[in-house]
Amino acid sequence: MAAIAAARDGSFRALNEASLVEYVRATPVIRELLGGGSEIGELSIMEVGDGNLNFVYIVVGPFGSVVIKQALPYIRCVGESWPMTKDRAYFEMLALKEQGRYCPGHVPEVYHFDRIMSLIAMRYLKPPHIILRKGLIAGIEYPLLAEHMSDFMAKTLFFTSLLYHSTTEHRRAVAEFCGNVELCRLTEQVVFSDPYKMAPHNRWTSPYLDEDAQAIREDDILKLEVAGLKSMFCERAQALIHGDLHTGSIMVTSDSTQVIDPEFAFYGPMGFDIGAFLGNLILGFFAQDGHANEDSNREQYKNWILKTVEDTWNLFHKKFISHWNEHKDGSGEAYPSPIYSKAELLQQVQSIYLEDLFHDSLGFGAAKMIRRIVGIAHVEDLESITDTSRRAHCERRALEFAKTLLKERRQFRTIEEVTAAALASV
Amino acid sequence: MAAIAAARDGSFRALNEASLVEYVRATPVIRELLGGGSEIGELSIMEVGDGNLNFVYIVVGPFGSVVIKQALPYIRCVGESWPMTKDRAYFEMLALKEQGRYCPGHVPEVYHFDRIMSLIAMRYLKPPHIILRKGLIAGIEYPLLAEHMSDFMAKTLFFTSLLYHSTTEHRRAVAEFCGNVELCRLTEQVVFSDPYKMAPHNRWTSPYLDEDAQAIREDDILKLEVAGLKSMFCERAQALIHGDLHTGSIMVTSDSTQVIDPEFAFYGPMGFDIGAFLGNLILGFFAQDGHANEDSNREQYKNWILKTVEDTWNLFHKKFISHWNEHKDGSGEAYPSPIYSKAELLQQVQSIYLEDLFHDSLGFGAAKMIRRIVGIAHVEDLESITDTSRRAHCERRALEFAKTLLKERRQFRTIEEVTAAALASV
Ligand SMILES: Nc1ncnc2c1ncn2[C@@H]1O[C@H](COP(=O)(O)OP(=O)(O)O)[C@@H](O)[C@H]1O
Ligand SMILES: Nc1ncnc2c1ncn2[C@@H]1O[C@H](COP(=O)(O)OP(=O)(O)O)[C@@H](O)[C@H]1O
Ligand SMILES: [Mg+2]
Ligand SMILES: [Mg+2]
Ligand SMILES: [Mg+2]
Ligand SMILES: [Mg+2]
Ligand SMILES: [Mg+2]
Repeated sequence: MAAIAAARDGSFRALNEASLVEYVRATPVIRELLGGGSEIGELSIMEVGDGNLNFVYIVVGPFGSVVIKQALPYIRCVGESWPMTKDRAYFEMLALKEQGRYCPGHVPEVYHFDRIMSLIAMRYLKPPHIILRKGLIAGIEYPLLAEHMSDFMAKTLFFTSLLYHSTTEHRRAVAEFCGNVELCRLTEQVVFSDPYKMAPHNRWTSPYLDEDAQAIREDDILKLEVAGLKSMFCERAQALIHGDLHTGSIMVTSDSTQVIDPEFAFYGPMGFDIGAFLGNLILGFFAQDGHANEDSNREQYKNWILKTVEDTWNLFHKKFISHWNEHKDGSGEAYPSPIYSKAELLQQVQSIYLEDLFHDSLGFGAAKMIRRIVGIAHVEDLESITDTSRRAHCERRALEFAKTLLKERRQFRTIEEVTAAALASV
Repeated sequence: MAAIAAARDGSFRALNEASLVEYVRATPVIRELLGGGSEIGELSIMEVGDGNLNFVYIVVGPFGSVVIKQALPYIRCVGESWPMTKDRAYFEMLALKEQGRYCPGHVPEVYHFDRIMSLIAMRYLKPPHIILRKGLIAGIEYPLLAEHMSDFMAKTLFFTSLLYHSTTEHRRAVAEFCGNVELCRLTEQVVFSDPYKMAPHNRWTSPYLDEDAQAIREDDILKLEVAGLKSMFCERAQALIHGDLHTGSIMVTSDSTQVIDPEFAFYGPMGFDIGAFLGNLILGFFAQDGHANEDSNREQYKNWILKTVEDTWNLFHKKFISHWNEHKDGSGEAYPSPIYSKAELLQQVQSIYLEDLFHDSLGFGAAKMIRRIVGIAHVEDLESITDTSRRAHCERRALEFAKTLLKERRQFRTIEEVTAAALASV
């Protein structure tokens, strides 16, 4: 009996609504959150994972609520035929804690982590929180989005880079997140490889985009540029990045912005996060014409999206520099203050750093846009346009813009030049 | 008694000639190498560490010989006041094995490693092997040096990069070598920081170079460029690099070239190794005028050095590309063959890769030259010029050349342009 219990406690089980109740009752931290004492009472449990990688349950008890996320050893939306380490939950937890440390206002707290069960209990982001992508499809403006996301990115990226870390801290953290290699490999495949070759999971709005998809596979300049970005993704440990910072990893209300789902986190290039966010906003922008109807032509909303793209970068730039200035005499070892203290020199260093980061972000953003149109995973912004020819029209415009951005990103000097180009391409 | 023996066996002891005899007798692998059976006979032991970081003993027995290197928990040439993890011996052993795997002809075999004692037993590179730097000072030509060193660098760098590694292998290895952070930090300090500020250990040929050293500390363009190189050193895990590949880490005869002392090894930018080797050859070149005398004006020897610089890069380029072509359909994941198979595209990718590597190598090489003239650790090539004003003259020329190389490296398109510039600066 004892041996059986031990084996059960010590090994992984995929939970469902029923077994989750048991798990919750047997886990003091969670029981406490939900209903105090030992008599926890009725629990309401609802699975809300939107079918991507993992299972997500909202658990509501008499006095509180919690979200429980469990990783299974495969990719949920593909099934057991595509195995994927469930240890991703460990890295998601580490990243949530690290990001939460620097930016508690925009990251749900972690209440509990069970490594054996690959299970995270975290704060339930209650309604009216919705996934940002859904808000963009519905045409809802979020006046604080740029402010909040620039804050999240400036803090999480600055404080995990060598502008703040000693190289000792940095290499320790880099080594730890090297363990999340399987998730990195998934990105390498679906973002940097599959769209540029014939790959079994690729799809696009056929037959409309057949030639466009083929053109991508035959575009040597594009492939050269993508190779450079992939190398940067694989080799450059610039900061702890979220790794999947699209508009489906952000929950919002009119005054709250919360970043969830950092299971792809590792030490990589900052531009990958900034690009993911901006690239997905721009995808949302190109999808708007597919959502226009007699009630709304979405013109104003398109402007709001582009304005948010501009504000996000410009505010990020400002905040990042201000963290840098505040900590320039700190423990960060990239630019030791005895060498870079002269105001003019520091400014030059910063302006080169941010210019490079801008171009990296545009490159990664463009790559993320492309893969959402001709790769395995598409975005609801476009998928929800039911008229196929209309959708293909939006997709082609987004694709053309992304190709230009990827190839000519170094020509863009300001984010306003980027949004102007997007507006001209629509 | 048993407890005392266990404590002794289980803990670190700094050896000397006498206790090394005991150690050797108690270690079957080594005893075997030296003299077979249990009766090992007379041993001759000589400490030959040339006063840098560690202790190195040549041990000769009746039937064989071995070199034993032990790391103490501080930097030998500074003393106990500068602590340094003795675990560097572990990373040196790992690197010797990895490099030996890909390039056995130019790396001494490791016979035995004792982690607790931070002790490596390796093949004794017998006379007439001498340290290459000494050969350069003596004016000895090594006709196979470029052939051998290009072989060593092309193999060790290619086969530990993503051109050959899967990203799974790569991240595992990167994580392991993140543990060698203390040695990386030493490089960060002495190569990328100290020369550009007032630092207690800096020195130069004073008063001759006082203004030159000051000019380095006040050169904003130089500091901008050095910052970029330092970031690359700290962030970019391109390949397993030796980390200290100067002419003092190479032992040579007229037909053998052996690379020793990779205790600084980690996953870093390839250009750091190539630059270290070429930069130190060029330092040797600039020192020649200080060694010229009535017997020899060293003009021919200077040409040989520059020719070796050229041949090394050109042969490296050729061999690196040939490894790449041979393994282009292999497990390396940087440029998957279904995407980059077209001959013309592959050539373009390779030419961009090698061009970037060329410029990285020039940058790192120049930084290594500078630090050897105004930083803590100087090179015997210049130090052995006893006439101070003559030495300062050589050093100033080397310094000026290195500054130009560092700042304008992207203007150089071929190695012959670099050697021509060196010749024009002497
Ligand atoms: N903390 C939370 N509060 C409320 N809802 C959440 C929370 N975390 C996740 N969700 C819901 O579950 C969905 C899937 O969560 P996510 O972490 O993105 O999982 P996956 O890794 O499978 O994409 C989200 O789109 C959101 O609707
Ligand atoms: N395998 C070897 N065979 C012969 N001599 C060696 C060997 N390894 C080291 N030496 C001698 O010992 C000296 C110091 O060795 P090295 O590995 O460079 O130590 P350190 O890390 O202290 O610089 C070398 O310059 C060389 O003269
Ligand atoms: Mg994504
Ligand atoms: Mg998600
Ligand atoms: Mg996810
Ligand atoms: Mg040495
Ligand atoms: Mg050494």
